[in-house]
Amino acid sequence: MSAVSLHDTFAQFTEQWSPKKIATLNDYDIKIVKVEGEFVWHSHADTDELFLVLKGHLRIQLRDGEVALGPGELFVVPRGVEHCPIADEEAEVMLIEPAGVVNTGDAGGPLTAVVDDLT
Amino acid sequence: MSAVSLHDTFAQFTEQWSPKKIATLNDYDIKIVKVEGEFVWHSHADTDELFLVLKGHLRIQLRDGEVALGPGELFVVPRGVEHCPIADEEAEVMLIEPAGVVNTGDAGGPLTAVVDDLT
Repeated sequence: MSAVSLHDTFAQFTEQWSPKKIATLNDYDIKIVKVEGEFVWHSHADTDELFLVLKGHLRIQLRDGEVALGPGELFVVPRGVEHCPIADEEAEVMLIEPAGVVNTGDAGGPLTAVVDDLT
Repeated sequence: MSAVSLHDTFAQFTEQWSPKKIATLNDYDIKIVKVEGEFVWHSHADTDELFLVLKGHLRIQLRDGEVALGPGELFVVPRGVEHCPIADEEAEVMLIEPAGVVNTGDAGGPLTAVVDDLT
């Protein structure tokens, strides 16, 4: 058993919008992702989704506003709430949600990604 | 709905070994805690427990070794595994585990803390 370094795991990939699993917590996945530009509007009917920004800035657009996150700031998107992340420059983000949650939720489309396992 | 700043929430308290809830994710609590010195050996029979160090250094002693964590490093203690956190100087740590988990697990004792709700 050993520590997981966020810095070292982010250094292992360059793809954007492609979450990587770095640890598991019961039936939850701890994932990291590099993001830049606008994602796709979607929701997750069955689960909340935690975003913790580690580097850069991320805005989570909601239908009635947006939440701006910088390093060390987190936000939990409640289940069923439509959201669309957007980053003007590349940002590094930790995501926590149950295993098997698809990044594009109900929207699908070309940004739908298989979660690579870096554990 | 608004962002939660780890910096701002850590600034709201000084007590050590007293976890504060800063967000919820489904039936999980996102907690932060300031730690210094040695905690108590304990385990959680029914759940894993995630430690993410945000500031300082934390060692998680295990019966067969220890895991050393610095800023941006995380470790998931598997359910049932005896552990004892220790920090030579004050460290700031994020904890994630199901709501209702008691910090001292099966050990109990004077360090058992009620989780204050900062949400």
